[in-house]
Amino acid sequence: MNAAQLKNRGDFLIRMRRLTGFLVLGILISFVLAAAPQQQPEAPFGSESSTKEAVPPLPSRLLRELTALRDAALADDYAYRQVAHLSENIGPRPAGSPQAAAAVEYVADELRKLGLEVRLEEVRVPRWIRGVETAELVEYPGQPLGTTQKIVLTALGGSTPTAADGLTAEVVVVNNFDQLKDLGRQKVAGKIVLFNVAFDRQKAASGFAGEAYGEAVTYRGSGAKAAAELGAVASLVRSVGGADYRLPHTGGSTAAGIPAGAITSEDADLIAHLAAQGKVRLHLTLTAQTGPDVLSYNVVADLKGTEHPEQVVIVSGHLDSWDLGTGAIDDAAGVAVAMETAQLIQQLHLHPKRTIRVIAWMDEEKGGRGHDAYAKSHEAEIGNHVAAIESDLGAAHPLGFNAKISANALLVLKPVQEILRPIGANLIKTTNYSPGSDIAPLAKAGVPTLGIMQDGRTYFNYHHTAADTLDKIVPQELRENAAAMALMGYALANLPEPLPR
Amino acid sequence: MNAAQLKNRGDFLIRMRRLTGFLVLGILISFVLAAAPQQQPEAPFGSESSTKEAVPPLPSRLLRELTALRDAALADDYAYRQVAHLSENIGPRPAGSPQAAAAVEYVADELRKLGLEVRLEEVRVPRWIRGVETAELVEYPGQPLGTTQKIVLTALGGSTPTAADGLTAEVVVVNNFDQLKDLGRQKVAGKIVLFNVAFDRQKAASGFAGEAYGEAVTYRGSGAKAAAELGAVASLVRSVGGADYRLPHTGGSTAAGIPAGAITSEDADLIAHLAAQGKVRLHLTLTAQTGPDVLSYNVVADLKGTEHPEQVVIVSGHLDSWDLGTGAIDDAAGVAVAMETAQLIQQLHLHPKRTIRVIAWMDEEKGGRGHDAYAKSHEAEIGNHVAAIESDLGAAHPLGFNAKISANALLVLKPVQEILRPIGANLIKTTNYSPGSDIAPLAKAGVPTLGIMQDGRTYFNYHHTAADTLDKIVPQELRENAAAMALMGYALANLPEPLPR
Repeated sequence: MNAAQLKNRGDFLIRMRRLTGFLVLGILISFVLAAAPQQQPEAPFGSESSTKEAVPPLPSRLLRELTALRDAALADDYAYRQVAHLSENIGPRPAGSPQAAAAVEYVADELRKLGLEVRLEEVRVPRWIRGVETAELVEYPGQPLGTTQKIVLTALGGSTPTAADGLTAEVVVVNNFDQLKDLGRQKVAGKIVLFNVAFDRQKAASGFAGEAYGEAVTYRGSGAKAAAELGAVASLVRSVGGADYRLPHTGGSTAAGIPAGAITSEDADLIAHLAAQGKVRLHLTLTAQTGPDVLSYNVVADLKGTEHPEQVVIVSGHLDSWDLGTGAIDDAAGVAVAMETAQLIQQLHLHPKRTIRVIAWMDEEKGGRGHDAYAKSHEAEIGNHVAAIESDLGAAHPLGFNAKISANALLVLKPVQEILRPIGANLIKTTNYSPGSDIAPLAKAGVPTLGIMQDGRTYFNYHHTAADTLDKIVPQELRENAAAMALMGYALANLPEPLPR
Repeated sequence: MNAAQLKNRGDFLIRMRRLTGFLVLGILISFVLAAAPQQQPEAPFGSESSTKEAVPPLPSRLLRELTALRDAALADDYAYRQVAHLSENIGPRPAGSPQAAAAVEYVADELRKLGLEVRLEEVRVPRWIRGVETAELVEYPGQPLGTTQKIVLTALGGSTPTAADGLTAEVVVVNNFDQLKDLGRQKVAGKIVLFNVAFDRQKAASGFAGEAYGEAVTYRGSGAKAAAELGAVASLVRSVGGADYRLPHTGGSTAAGIPAGAITSEDADLIAHLAAQGKVRLHLTLTAQTGPDVLSYNVVADLKGTEHPEQVVIVSGHLDSWDLGTGAIDDAAGVAVAMETAQLIQQLHLHPKRTIRVIAWMDEEKGGRGHDAYAKSHEAEIGNHVAAIESDLGAAHPLGFNAKISANALLVLKPVQEILRPIGANLIKTTNYSPGSDIAPLAKAGVPTLGIMQDGRTYFNYHHTAADTLDKIVPQELRENAAAMALMGYALANLPEPLPR
């Protein structure tokens, strides 16, 4: 290296150190400014342009009630206690499990205690049992004699079981569907396909977690089917999530008649590196299988409207969870903030004009049988569903709502946004929103739908993993979510007219 | 809540949002400034006061050689390729395993290829086999009928095996040794003790990772013994590490005649919460056990000194690893930068005046038999050991060295620090340094010892876990470590006089 090269290198390193210094300085300044008395006018947050439009006023009594609900939510720990009970005392709640059954009973009882009319609406759900899931590299370049290397993995929802003693095959690594197609049946048949498609951590950390998830999860969903079509004996995906802690990430996949699993990002790297050097053979045991359907339930609990009891506003989350973690963020939190909505209304002795319906959906994760059953049995009254809200993106700070609503509806909700502004939950984003699967059938039927838009930057590090546990819930952030759900639910139930479609 | 309370709460939330805004602003400013042309004089970094002292000059030829070594290190990927081979092709390398034996052969061969005189020095090491490690809560408050909850754990080095079908006992949770003592034999005998002592993540993230580790690891080391003395049937610790990804952290513990394990921080929270509500019983299977001693080796490789071949400067890391991960940061990286020291000297056709001895220590993690054997077999020549360097704190950016050296020695090394300054590795910290166990016997015998001081903020999130894998190594940071090791090793071998003791 010559002197000029060194200088460039040295300058780079010095700049990096300076950068660190400036960052520290910036942080210090930020704290000083943040701690200083608030004399500046409040900075704009969210779209302000519409303030020039004619916003229909809401009754002042309703505004007072919404403000009171917000404040009560921020002071209450009811939702946190529900998450704690569901995730720690009951534990993981896969559909069809005894824990899911216990969760149904628990939530129904709690909502009855709050004075709601509770129905358990039947849902027949598939019972999936994870079984054994192990894998080890049995042949690879440089392998010390008599050794194997453990591969950390988990079965996916649609996996077909291997034999009890597993299968052994060579691994072919592809980075996308095109590469798989290019390999063709001759190079894929009899092999284990690894879809080594990385979850984009930087995209997620920059606020585009949903996009990052969507790009990678395609392979989890459809990879096994594509591999099976070319004769593969098993399909593995690189885990869809941002963690770098050797943490496998489960989830649904289209049943393809072959075993399907997710290995950790570290193990995907390992196999890809070794396969680039030579032949890699894996011994794989995944005995997960689906048993006969089991009777389960959506918990549907009504706080009847005083003026229009037939008109319904749904506040909801899903009660089932994956089995690896304890399902705190996915989605005990959603159920809990829906329950809290009813709790706060009762605590404040408020009376919704329309019916507020708390729903704890069953089987969101593996089959979606819960929302299918609801859509079918409530088909005749869909026209009376004023709106449906769900929370199914964790429990981090809410920024507001994703919504599939009309421009007129958005205008009507402006005063509600203002009340959510002090907690920073006043955004309503109506672009690129696909309602979560539990409320998607309602959206399809024309019902306005809203999902709480949590800060999702770290959500996919934890969800569908063993690390989805109670400690991932920040109590204050959960209270903010409860405020958002309660406020929006009560507002929708008490608008002078039903939200315009 | 009244209006004043609301205002306070709202103000707080607004401040938090503002804080985020200011941070973003600070980051942007930092990037702009860092990207701007470098017109300012270089900011001071490290202690400047000593420049007023009389620093003995080093020969200009040596200074040129050190500069060349630094530059070559920053351009070379030899060390990275060594880490990749050790961690991925060979894999986990617990002492006494076939992988450890393969690693000994590999490193010896590589060092022979570099032209070093390689000796395999015998070490008899304990062979520890992890076996089965499972646990589940079989009784706890709120437990749904017919269910258990999985507890994620790993066995500790000194664990005594349970029966093959495990043991079942009530769990008592303590937060420190005093609480255990207060409970006394009556409340501890027959129980499983859980030491629920949290690793201080904030302390670690603030740059005091070693302190955070030290505070918590006491319980991993001595907990089982304290529990056994009061009649406990097993001992568990909360994992000593900063990860919140349901990741258990293994490590050594004093053999106490009872099973000893580490559960994840999430599982420790779960048990502590449930035990605060009522009786918690755990079924625990830990079949880890130690077999008969196995013959293994320290790899000791000399690049003979041209003027004082009898004088020795050690550059070293340890070759064995724990078995959960692939031992990339702990400590393939240390071995690799020691190997790279020899590689760079040969590549640049340099000639150390004193002997540079590359050592890949065996059995650092479980018994320390490697350094014991070395201290014994080299006892007669300890006086000729000029200095010993190790790298055993990962592979993150090196800030410089921790050192157990005299004030005079520190003065002599000032010019070396200057050459390390452009890569930000110019600190030498001589306070509160306990040399790592491999060089501790040498330090005790009066040999000046130095350990590379890596940025350790995230080290304990990964080390001793399944997530200690190649992806945790940032190639550029590893090159910086190689530069630090090579520079210091060669400097110590070529100082006009041996480093003052």
